[in-house]
Formats: sequence, C-alpha cells, structure tokens
Amino acid sequence: MAEFILTGQEFQDRAMRAQAVLRKTNLDALLVFSTESEPAGVRYFSDYWPSFETAGVLIPRDGEPALIIGPESLTYASARTKIATVIQTMDFRESSQPDYPGSSHPDWKTILTRFNVKKLGISGFHMFPYTIMMNIAAALGGMENISNADALLRQVTMKKSPLEIACLRKAAKISELGFKAVLENIRPGMSEVELCGIATAAMLANGAEATGYPVWCCSGPNSDQAISRPSLREVQCGEIIHFSIGAKVEGYSASIGRPVVLGKCPDEVRKFMQVGLDASNMTFDSMRAGLQASEVAKKIHGFIIEKGYGDAILYGPAHGCGQMECEYPFLETSSDYVLEENMTFMADMFLHRNQMGFRWEDGLIVRANGPAEELSSFGRQLNILEV
Amino acid sequence: MAEFILTGQEFQDRAMRAQAVLRKTNLDALLVFSTESEPAGVRYFSDYWPSFETAGVLIPRDGEPALIIGPESLTYASARTKIATVIQTMDFRESSQPDYPGSSHPDWKTILTRFNVKKLGISGFHMFPYTIMMNIAAALGGMENISNADALLRQVTMKKSPLEIACLRKAAKISELGFKAVLENIRPGMSEVELCGIATAAMLANGAEATGYPVWCCSGPNSDQAISRPSLREVQCGEIIHFSIGAKVEGYSASIGRPVVLGKCPDEVRKFMQVGLDASNMTFDSMRAGLQASEVAKKIHGFIIEKGYGDAILYGPAHGCGQMECEYPFLETSSDYVLEENMTFMADMFLHRNQMGFRWEDGLIVRANGPAEELSSFGRQLNILEV
Repeated sequence: MAEFILTGQEFQDRAMRAQAVLRKTNLDALLVFSTESEPAGVRYFSDYWPSFETAGVLIPRDGEPALIIGPESLTYASARTKIATVIQTMDFRESSQPDYPGSSHPDWKTILTRFNVKKLGISGFHMFPYTIMMNIAAALGGMENISNADALLRQVTMKKSPLEIACLRKAAKISELGFKAVLENIRPGMSEVELCGIATAAMLANGAEATGYPVWCCSGPNSDQAISRPSLREVQCGEIIHFSIGAKVEGYSASIGRPVVLGKCPDEVRKFMQVGLDASNMTFDSMRAGLQASEVAKKIHGFIIEKGYGDAILYGPAHGCGQMECEYPFLETSSDYVLEENMTFMADMFLHRNQMGFRWEDGLIVRANGPAEELSSFGRQLNILEV
Repeated sequence: MAEFILTGQEFQDRAMRAQAVLRKTNLDALLVFSTESEPAGVRYFSDYWPSFETAGVLIPRDGEPALIIGPESLTYASARTKIATVIQTMDFRESSQPDYPGSSHPDWKTILTRFNVKKLGISGFHMFPYTIMMNIAAALGGMENISNADALLRQVTMKKSPLEIACLRKAAKISELGFKAVLENIRPGMSEVELCGIATAAMLANGAEATGYPVWCCSGPNSDQAISRPSLREVQCGEIIHFSIGAKVEGYSASIGRPVVLGKCPDEVRKFMQVGLDASNMTFDSMRAGLQASEVAKKIHGFIIEKGYGDAILYGPAHGCGQMECEYPFLETSSDYVLEENMTFMADMFLHRNQMGFRWEDGLIVRANGPAEELSSFGRQLNILEV
C-alpha cells in the first residue's frame, strides 16, 4: 500500500500559518484559486487538485477553511480533500460551460455571507478569471473590497517544511528513474513523444502520482526551445536530444533537465554543453543562505559571458520550486532579496544559440554553511551514448 | 517520418471563416485565449499550444492574424505556428510572474494599435484573466469596447471539417491502443497511476502527441468519481476499475471510457454496468441529424430511469468534442438545438451510486440517415477478466 508523507497536521498547520498572516491585514478571508494546469494553491491547503474544472480554498481569519469546487467533482474532491467543508459552485465549472439542468449550487453572495467575508484577498490573482472576479465584486459591493494576495501567500509557502522537502526529494529521485529509463531505451529513430512516454511510464510505475508538468524531449533544431512540448520528430545521431523530465509526488513537482547525444558528438556541441554544466555546478556551489540573490546570478552569468556564450542566456540560473515546477522567487541579476536556509530552487541552466540548446536542471535546498544540497544528480554528466 | 493530417490551407480556411463571422459584427478583431490545460482556441488557429505560459491569436477583420505568446516560448512557438506573425508580451508569461530583466515586449496599446483594433471580441472569455482584461480595457478606453466572443467562435468551430474528423478518428484509434495495453497488462495489485502510465506510453509509442486530457483510472470506491485523477491505490479483484483514456492527435482529443472487473464480478455490478452500456448504445442509435437534442437526452434518461437507476445520473448522455475532450454543445434534457450532420460528440454515459460508478465513452459523428458513426469501439463490452 502507498505510504504518504504529508499528514493531516501539516495541512492544519498551513491553514493556521495563512490565518496568522491574514490577521495582520484588513482582510476577512483569503481565496486561493487553482486550475487543472496550475493546481498549486488549492493543493497546498486541501490536497485536492482540479481536473477539467477549477477550484478554490476559502480561508477565513478564524475558523475552518472551505474547499470550493465545480459541479462534477464532488466525489473526487471528497475522496481527496483534507478540508472537511466542501462547497460546489457553478463558477468553477469546466471551460465548456455545461448547463447542468436542475442543479442549484450557491452563488458567491451566499458563500461569502456564510463566512462573514466583507474584504477578500485572492491569490492566483494573475490567472483569476475576469467573469468570476466580477461576480465576487458584485457580491462584495465592488472591486475595492478585493485585493491581490499573491505576496501574502508567498509569506506562507516560500520556505519549505521538512515534509515538503521530503516530497520534493522523493519526486526528484523518481524523476531520475524516468531519465534512467530513457538512457536504457533510447535509440535513433524513436520519436520525441515515444521517449517521453517511456519516462512517464517509468515514473508512474515507481510512485509518481503524475508528471510534475507536461514533460518534453526536444531534439536537433527543436532543442533550441526553452519551453517546449515533444513532437513526433525522430531523434538522430550527432544532435542534441534534450530531456526535461519531472515527477509529481503529493503535489510537489521535480524536474531534471539533461541533454543527450547519440553516437559521435561534434566538438562545438560538447564544449557548449560543458559550459552549461560548469555554470550549473557553479550555481550549486554559489547559492547559500545570507547571500544576495542578484549577486549569485551575476557571478554565474559572468562566467558564461567570459566563456563567450553570453548571447545564449535567456534567463537567470535558478528559480523557486515546490508544488509548481517553477515558483517565485527567481534568481535573476535583478533579484532583490537574500537567500535563506530551506528555500528550494531548481538550478535551471538553459542556454541556446544557432538552433541548438539544452537545459541542465536539478533541484536544490539552500543551506547555511556550505554549497546547496542536491535533490537529484543522476546522469549529471555529458551523456554521449554509443549506438 | 511523421505524416500530418492538417494542411496550411486548413489553418488559412479557419482564419477566413472567423473573419467572415467577424465582419457581421461591429468588432475589429477577435482575440482567442488559451492556457496550458485549455489549449484549444489558440491551437485551432495557429497549431501552437502553450505550456507554462498562456497565449492568444489576434484575428483582425481583414489581413493576417498574429500569434501572441509569452517571453519564453519564441523558439518553441516559431517551430510550431502556422501564423507567420509572432508577437511576445509580458501578460502571457508564467503564473509565477518571472521578471525577465532587460526584456522589452510590446504592451496591449502597441499591439492593438498596430492592428487598428478599437472594438475587440474575446473568446475563452470565462477563463480570461482579470488582470489582462484590465490592461486591454485600459488600452481600448474601457470594458465597453470588449465583448464575449465565445458564441461567435462556436459558429466557426462547431461543425468539423473532413480533416478535423480524420484527426479525431486517428486519436480514437490510438486511444483504443492505450486501453488494449491496459487489458493486456493489468494485474491485481498494480496502482491506478501505473496503469495510466502503461496506457500513456502505448499511445505515445503509436502516434499520439500527448494524452487528450489528464487520463485516469479510478478503482473500487474511487470509481464513484465523475471527474478524477489516478491515485496510488492498488486495484483489486471483484471491484469496478474504471479507465478514462484518450490520445491527442494534431490538437484533437479522443477518449474511451471503460469499466473493467478482475476475477468474479458481483451480479449487481454486472447489471449496473450493462444498463450503462445499453444506454450508451441507445445514444449511438438515437443521435441523428434533424432531431432536437433535448428529445434524445430525455429518451436515454427515460430508459435509465425505467431500469431503476435514475438516481445514478449526473449529467446528459453526450457532449461535444474536438480539440477539447469536452466542448460545447451538450446533450442535456434542456438542450435547445437541432443535431446537424458532421457534429462530433462523445457519447459519455457516466452512472454512479453507492460508492461505485463507471463511464462508457466513445466518440461519434452525427449522420443524416441512420445511427451515429462510431469513432471507437474496442472493448465496448463487459470486460470481466480472468486472473
């Protein structure tokens, strides 16, 4: 039987931490919003993650939170939620806007009155739908009673608990098994999607609950793509075949990014990949508690520029991670904050030029006295495979 | 090498049909919005589908459309798009809101002025983010210059072209291979997620570009879930093990829904599944061009009620399909429209009661003279497997 890392107490602690932050504001409640592809906030507080529909968690200043879902997910949500109160509302139905004749779920006025909410903070603010915002504003008497609570939520979620780190660690180890399956099975002529299928099946057979994001392989000229999806292109010898593979464990998303070359590797490709690997290793060595984030980013970018690859940089050498594979904060040359112990990042070294690119990516935990702790390391080398 | 069904001409035809509809309105342009998990609109016009970021297609009344993407997807989008003009804007960046220091993408004022847009229709309206809506409203001088264009877009997308039907047919056949792999490999003690991994790998090895949606297996008490995600629960003999499996081909999403029982099947379970299968078969027999949609739904629901399972109904017996596995229109007892030839649906018979449920689901094409044409049929029987 599956053993779970996260406890009921963990979820209660999260709600209480959110309420402690909330009580320092003039807000009566926080509404955390999530979608199928952006499930983090709702999962964080309830362990439920929507599919097809959207969802929210309403956390009042005092008392128990409520999970708010769409019309079709009651049995699914009830089986997953760590929050006892589950409310259905039509506004969280599928994008196709089904009718559901005869159903009579409460509107926002009813829900917000029940929880005595007059002033509401919303997180997931930048993806919150306009139509739902208007319905909530009408229920509360105007937009002046709604505010963006993304920064407020970050105070709760940014530093990870020991159980969260355990989830990230397990997700990273399973991601390694996905990449291992690729290394054991890859042959010229296989399609990018087929290789992703092999990685996905291996991760799901080894304890992942899902992929952490839509994983991809991008080969040859496609390797130039910072964000990508796998295509039906068949991988060939002598080209970069890039893999971004990640597992999800109890809501936490890992990722490992690796370039692979089959057969003979051109010298320029080998040199390019090695600069990226060196820069990534430097990221692990350089990130530690107490340092200014921008200074670390400048050091890494300085190294890449000095090696002659400044034009290949698209973004900073690391970004936060947790439930989403990419979370606030970022490690950019403009990053105005100090690294703290137990912050978790993905060291994400993406370089690209001349229709060729790759990403070295592994998770890390910021430590106080020494280099960052690796969450994954398997295959962290130039993988040039004989065929 | 992969052969594609959709042609460049198909995408040009789509834009021209949208423009023909647009010219009957007072709108200067249509903005079609999509996200990672709701990629349909943007994919329909551009063949690009976002991941991590969001995206839009701007279709002016006259002239060429533009694909609008976020800061990290230029090489990915450029490799996929059938639309020559690609514009980047910060508003379509990831939910984590990265900084991208030094980048300077155009704002909405610049983009909309370039295309001479004063009045804009937006589709994907119900999921369109509030913050982006406010930025566009500011650029256009107020919300009175923005309208909901979902109904307008449906006039373009609802009836499928021969090439679209070819994509749906291929996606359905590949979905069958996913379910076939499940039937060949399932054993008691395997986890729901592992079984989904087997189906996914089989589909990706046979020409799917992705799953059509987050596929699931839900077993035992979990089978009660209308929408679900697979869990780490291990499947057992004598219980319903439900599969919703679907492949995506060139943007088109299929699905087959099937209950499976390992070992001895209790009589009440067998009877329950058979009523659902009979009701699903009746859906195929009953849907044809010229009939009122609500009348068909009433007939199917009447049969289920007569058999004593009225309490097990959650929604109508079919829904539209195409790029999204679930699209407008729905076949509900309240559906006020007439079925037309070449409309495509999923016959989606979900029944649940007493912590037990299942879905019989297969695609169909509405025909004028006779029953609907099946898109998939493999394993469309009581799958009670010896172990």
